[in-house]
Amino acid sequence: MPLLTEDAKGVYVIAVTPFLDNGEIDWTSVDRMVDFYEEKGVIGLTILGQLGEAPKMTADESKAIAKRVIARAKVPVVVGVTAPGLAAMRELSDFVMEIGSAGVMVAPPWTTKTDDQAYAFYASVGEALGQTPFVLQDYPLTTNVTIAPKVIDRIVRDVPNCVMLKHEDWPGLGKISALRASSEKGETRRISILCGNGGLFLPEEMGRGADGAMTGFCYPEMMVGVVDKYGKGDVERAHDIFDAYLPLARYEQQQGLGLAARKYVLAKRGVISSAALRKPGASLSKIDINDVERLLARQKKRLAEIGA
Amino acid sequence: MPLLTEDAKGVYVIAVTPFLDNGEIDWTSVDRMVDFYEEKGVIGLTILGQLGEAPKMTADESKAIAKRVIARAKVPVVVGVTAPGLAAMRELSDFVMEIGSAGVMVAPPWTTKTDDQAYAFYASVGEALGQTPFVLQDYPLTTNVTIAPKVIDRIVRDVPNCVMLKHEDWPGLGKISALRASSEKGETRRISILCGNGGLFLPEEMGRGADGAMTGFCYPEMMVGVVDKYGKGDVERAHDIFDAYLPLARYEQQQGLGLAARKYVLAKRGVISSAALRKPGASLSKIDINDVERLLARQKKRLAEIGA
Amino acid sequence: MPLLTEDAKGVYVIAVTPFLDNGEIDWTSVDRMVDFYEEKGVIGLTILGQLGEAPKMTADESKAIAKRVIARAKVPVVVGVTAPGLAAMRELSDFVMEIGSAGVMVAPPWTTKTDDQAYAFYASVGEALGQTPFVLQDYPLTTNVTIAPKVIDRIVRDVPNCVMLKHEDWPGLGKISALRASSEKGETRRISILCGNGGLFLPEEMGRGADGAMTGFCYPEMMVGVVDKYGKGDVERAHDIFDAYLPLARYEQQQGLGLAARKYVLAKRGVISSAALRKPGASLSKIDINDVERLLARQKKRLAEIGA
Amino acid sequence: MPLLTEDAKGVYVIAVTPFLDNGEIDWTSVDRMVDFYEEKGVIGLTILGQLGEAPKMTADESKAIAKRVIARAKVPVVVGVTAPGLAAMRELSDFVMEIGSAGVMVAPPWTTKTDDQAYAFYASVGEALGQTPFVLQDYPLTTNVTIAPKVIDRIVRDVPNCVMLKHEDWPGLGKISALRASSEKGETRRISILCGNGGLFLPEEMGRGADGAMTGFCYPEMMVGVVDKYGKGDVERAHDIFDAYLPLARYEQQQGLGLAARKYVLAKRGVISSAALRKPGASLSKIDINDVERLLARQKKRLAEIGA
Repeated sequence: MPLLTEDAKGVYVIAVTPFLDNGEIDWTSVDRMVDFYEEKGVIGLTILGQLGEAPKMTADESKAIAKRVIARAKVPVVVGVTAPGLAAMRELSDFVMEIGSAGVMVAPPWTTKTDDQAYAFYASVGEALGQTPFVLQDYPLTTNVTIAPKVIDRIVRDVPNCVMLKHEDWPGLGKISALRASSEKGETRRISILCGNGGLFLPEEMGRGADGAMTGFCYPEMMVGVVDKYGKGDVERAHDIFDAYLPLARYEQQQGLGLAARKYVLAKRGVISSAALRKPGASLSKIDINDVERLLARQKKRLAEIGA
Repeated sequence: MPLLTEDAKGVYVIAVTPFLDNGEIDWTSVDRMVDFYEEKGVIGLTILGQLGEAPKMTADESKAIAKRVIARAKVPVVVGVTAPGLAAMRELSDFVMEIGSAGVMVAPPWTTKTDDQAYAFYASVGEALGQTPFVLQDYPLTTNVTIAPKVIDRIVRDVPNCVMLKHEDWPGLGKISALRASSEKGETRRISILCGNGGLFLPEEMGRGADGAMTGFCYPEMMVGVVDKYGKGDVERAHDIFDAYLPLARYEQQQGLGLAARKYVLAKRGVISSAALRKPGASLSKIDINDVERLLARQKKRLAEIGA
Repeated sequence: MPLLTEDAKGVYVIAVTPFLDNGEIDWTSVDRMVDFYEEKGVIGLTILGQLGEAPKMTADESKAIAKRVIARAKVPVVVGVTAPGLAAMRELSDFVMEIGSAGVMVAPPWTTKTDDQAYAFYASVGEALGQTPFVLQDYPLTTNVTIAPKVIDRIVRDVPNCVMLKHEDWPGLGKISALRASSEKGETRRISILCGNGGLFLPEEMGRGADGAMTGFCYPEMMVGVVDKYGKGDVERAHDIFDAYLPLARYEQQQGLGLAARKYVLAKRGVISSAALRKPGASLSKIDINDVERLLARQKKRLAEIGA
Repeated sequence: MPLLTEDAKGVYVIAVTPFLDNGEIDWTSVDRMVDFYEEKGVIGLTILGQLGEAPKMTADESKAIAKRVIARAKVPVVVGVTAPGLAAMRELSDFVMEIGSAGVMVAPPWTTKTDDQAYAFYASVGEALGQTPFVLQDYPLTTNVTIAPKVIDRIVRDVPNCVMLKHEDWPGLGKISALRASSEKGETRRISILCGNGGLFLPEEMGRGADGAMTGFCYPEMMVGVVDKYGKGDVERAHDIFDAYLPLARYEQQQGLGLAARKYVLAKRGVISSAALRKPGASLSKIDINDVERLLARQKKRLAEIGA
């Protein structure tokens, strides 16, 4: 399997982890989910992220999920390996690379404060991971860590195996512009920038030079469609598609509850057998389900109107 | 001028503060803005909020703005009086009530941690404000303080001049449901719940029992339309209006930059003379402006399609 | 080996993890360290805490350390099992209990905000751990989580395997008083309260009803002496001992650097072979070493003066 | 009155604000307090700091206190002017400079994250204050803002009216060393560094090149004595004095409660008439008072033993 590179373009979907109602991993749904995402046109899968409920797994479960997904997938697989320390991170990283992962993803610890601390963390990650290419996950809303564009530039300059930014600073449009300006001036390498935040700013992010998306949504065809149309220069069509899905995408952005909504729709679409989150996890109330059903009905109607 | 009560329903708009390009207050635009908001159907104005750039004013400027707005407005005016301590808060509150304000709004200090600390803060606010009715501003994303529904219930029970919740917890739909369940069971008073967060969840919030919105957006007609249609039971039409404005409303939700976008559009609409924020404040880049202009064009087209 | 109970009294020392200069675990020093702590009079050992550099270990290393310490120790051993999720926590907990641990210790995730969230976390911990007795680690300075006394009372009431509080809220004297008042009134069980924070308030904490200390310091004889004298009613002598060690204990309280100082002195005392922390970790500068040496010389002199 | 300069050496005491039991400012005690601090050998007074209960004052009260203290004092007075925004900060600053203040002190807003944000804040403060010399207050424990040494260097280089650092990062010994290394290499100006944190690391801070202390303690003679002896090269005597006061100084470092203890002792010493804090504020319980009284008795005995 080829390794993750700075040239990645398109959609890496943040995969959910399917569970049975009793909290055990649902292996049949894992396979079906991999197939589903590939059919919808993603160019890669990212597993064991925050929204893949990674922190709820044992070390052995994490490895088993990686094994199953990598064995099934025809596209590259990136594995989240964020851990409380470097040793545990490296251990999981070495394991998943050996079985065919394309790369790994790492978020910073919440105690990171100054520019130098953020830099030092990723420098030590780069060193600990050896040759393994990694994705820098920049998600202040859940990590509590704000990393300035120039700090990312410095990491990119000094840490060769940092090949991708999962961009989910918010607001972050100016950040993409700043990073692209640095690489265009030749001050640093041009790495792949894939955007997160559920794709909520995806068209504008593409306009700033993003290479695609690395995020989750119960309709991955939204991200695939927006990135595709944008890449072909059809900006208005990209927005048409985006706008049709936006009300539901927005609903999925509710922290905690959003994942329950995502799994509800994926179950309804026949991708996974159960919408259950592993404990502790949110579940939809009746009124939440009504909300989602109304949004789905309206979305269907709107997609028909625009011929998508 | 009547005082703010628990029965308030509709849209209190969070007013911007208009400045000249040199940073001075633009009094002519203040008047025009008041008229504009009223023409669009708001039932009240909230001034000197975070997005009214309140922290950038001197004490005298705050008083002068309150004076001008209250003198001009035909609808009730709520004034943000959040301050580092109770004495300064009470001083501004007493001043604005004397000149005809309908009530005041108070957010908690970022150091508030436990349930009891949040309760104690609002109990002391209630006491310090005397007879003045106040709005509890619940905005974790900017205050760093999370207040559980049962803590709000306890405040409502014990602090009689707490008459309104500016609800902008996120995600917060379940919070509205919980608060309404308490008052329906008779466990606490039913206070007015007006929603914030730029209206980004307004239709669903109305579905949980919110009474309207207290938030800003460059098209206040969106909030007025959604609340009005929802109140008349025309839920689908409320969503139609909401969806048409959602791409721009989402764009305005970018912290910092969003206010610059809001002022840009208000200036373009002829409401305020200058889009300038007082220092320190963001300003739109060329590409930001392109983004906004595209969204405006698409919004205009979509509004025409739905006949709004 | 008997299980940890609510009756524990005395000093559980937070053990360091000895490394060789190259970062590998120094097994010989592990044994020597266990013997040293026991000779100095501790009644238990707590391993794999934050200051035992637990987050820097792989899962296998954590298990190996627990195995070695438990095999060597004549006193009960508590193991820190804090993990990003319940599954990993339970896995380590089950392992160490099987090999003879007396109990485990758990700190809350930094994202815990409201009273109910803190309660729900420990309720789910209690359930996940089954019969295993656990220590609630209450250390806001490093966890970012403040847990009010009444929340601890509620946990104690509802979660039977919560048998001990590692108290290191700061300031926290009033918290001990509040917790003891609850159990004295019969409103909740009386659990063991052992104090942390390097023992910096130990005499006053004993005066509020603490049962001893669970903390680290390069002279565990300080904690043992203070707790012993206090228990015998000789409060002034407890303070004499405390005061003699206080200048160094204070120096060790510097976050990050303090552990380097602790290991420096333990190496100097012949307990561990190397003062090295595993990466990433602080190390003492020349001027830091001068500081420590001066404090050691002065401490020696003062101990001689008071005949300790 | 001469302005604050980079050459300041000695002790600027953080003054309390004396209140009557009913919460009103106790003007007689204000005068007596000024005299007391001067008699004990401080070279300056810093008023309206966090521990001067500044946030609890109205704008007019702050001005009145500054007026009274400046009129009474024979030593320079620095005034805390931290405010939610630049306009209010400048207004108070201009007022106090006009009536004879030596300079002002400013802490950063809690929302400051990256190096550039910290720099930009102090650059805008420097500009807003005009010619007024200011103290950069670096107190992460209460501000939530960590400022790296190189950021302080950059501020010092570019902002000429930044003449002093109130150093209370914790741990912070290495920070002083880093800042002094920069100025010794000629990379930046040498500004005055006065240390905070209640003087809890004062001897070691002097050893790194600090110029003295700017902090509060009910026995300012401790800071004056340590700084004086250290300046004369009598390091051991400096430590003797420090150690004698350390148990009480440590007790005063409890956030919130510490100020109540400080005022209790100042009242007992006859400096202020009432130990009351303005609401909301802590007060000592009976057992707290017992603690303090024991520490005072032991301190008296120890001071006699060392002939101080």
